[in-house]
Amino acid sequence: MPTSQDIFDTLAALGVAVPAEIRPQGRYDLVLVHQGLAQVSGQVPRLDNSGTLLAGRLEADQDLEAARAAARLCLARALVALHQELGDLTRVERLISLRGFVNAAPDFQRHGQVMDAASELAIALFGEAGRHIRSSLGVSSLPGGALVEIELTAAVARPH
Amino acid sequence: MPTSQDIFDTLAALGVAVPAEIRPQGRYDLVLVHQGLAQVSGQVPRLDNSGTLLAGRLEADQDLEAARAAARLCLARALVALHQELGDLTRVERLISLRGFVNAAPDFQRHGQVMDAASELAIALFGEAGRHIRSSLGVSSLPGGALVEIELTAAVARPH
Amino acid sequence: MPTSQDIFDTLAALGVAVPAEIRPQGRYDLVLVHQGLAQVSGQVPRLDNSGTLLAGRLEADQDLEAARAAARLCLARALVALHQELGDLTRVERLISLRGFVNAAPDFQRHGQVMDAASELAIALFGEAGRHIRSSLGVSSLPGGALVEIELTAAVARPH
Repeated sequence: MPTSQDIFDTLAALGVAVPAEIRPQGRYDLVLVHQGLAQVSGQVPRLDNSGTLLAGRLEADQDLEAARAAARLCLARALVALHQELGDLTRVERLISLRGFVNAAPDFQRHGQVMDAASELAIALFGEAGRHIRSSLGVSSLPGGALVEIELTAAVARPH
Repeated sequence: MPTSQDIFDTLAALGVAVPAEIRPQGRYDLVLVHQGLAQVSGQVPRLDNSGTLLAGRLEADQDLEAARAAARLCLARALVALHQELGDLTRVERLISLRGFVNAAPDFQRHGQVMDAASELAIALFGEAGRHIRSSLGVSSLPGGALVEIELTAAVARPH
Repeated sequence: MPTSQDIFDTLAALGVAVPAEIRPQGRYDLVLVHQGLAQVSGQVPRLDNSGTLLAGRLEADQDLEAARAAARLCLARALVALHQELGDLTRVERLISLRGFVNAAPDFQRHGQVMDAASELAIALFGEAGRHIRSSLGVSSLPGGALVEIELTAAVARPH
């Protein structure tokens, strides 16, 4: 599996911002590993801990690039959170699932195209091991007004 | 446990359409089996791969039959997806969970009655092994304008 | 780990109502234990089986106390449901995750502060073992018009 450095280099090469240290924004943990499964708390597209957030609500006819960039950033944050917890991303055996909550108006229908940006990135980073099941849905609001929130689950090996 | 043919026959006898081959509508997998758990990507009530979808948004005073039929179709699709992945549904040991996202106006309150259609069908098909935990909630939009989206998790045996 | 009586006493001391017996409101199970994980069906803030429910929809500038109380009640219900299934809460090894669906207007942004009420309570009750990952999001409607719905997953030991 790729190292954390490999992953962060690839993200940078693809133009995806890699957040520095991530801290929870409340009384929860970022990652919990139990019986070989690592679950990551829902990540919103926050660029840094000062709070800069990709925010907004998608309208039906709106261009999707901002939301797709937000989805990529949510995934990048989840991977940074995993890196912090695991020590190195080489411990990731495979991704399991993504769940994407898209902040969208009632007539928005292209949730799948937004989440494909995260799914394509997962596969670009991990290859076959990046494949995953997924759910995409529209929500009426998200913390801080975020455009997208993503949950990630991955299978991980024991510490080396 | 019932075979796939048993399940598909019962669905047909109950008037629930059984979709033919299902393909993902994006860069995700339909089903992922890990450590004896099969998780199915969120299914919307699509009748076939040409894209015919039971769409709409539930109002508070609306009749629930269309939404209940959509919930049954989501479950049927999830079972077809499991069949495709497992080879045969006899490998299903028991259902674990359903999560139902109902496309609904803010004053809609009968999410449970919509999801009961899927839960009742699960129990009709699998008996005691069809029992499950469940969450039902209302969302502001769904992919393609779908009426309902359902996630299914099941415990499965190793291949025979 | 604390006994059920310890937990219920602490909830009462903190002013959190402890619902008496809980029954499902549809064709699902309240709790399912599989491979050492107990998952609880989504709980809404219902005070009793007669149906009294903390209902409403959060506006952006609204005081959060009612919603925070609702989040605490959802958690209390999930723990009563676990108690009913397990016999005693001493079998809980640790909490794993909370997922919180907040019934909120499109411009509401403080989902995390609502869910912190449940997270803080979890840690007050279980200490380090109460730590968990979490997702918080806004939904357009919930069963019965509930203010909040919470899903809980916990790791549990085999019966004594």
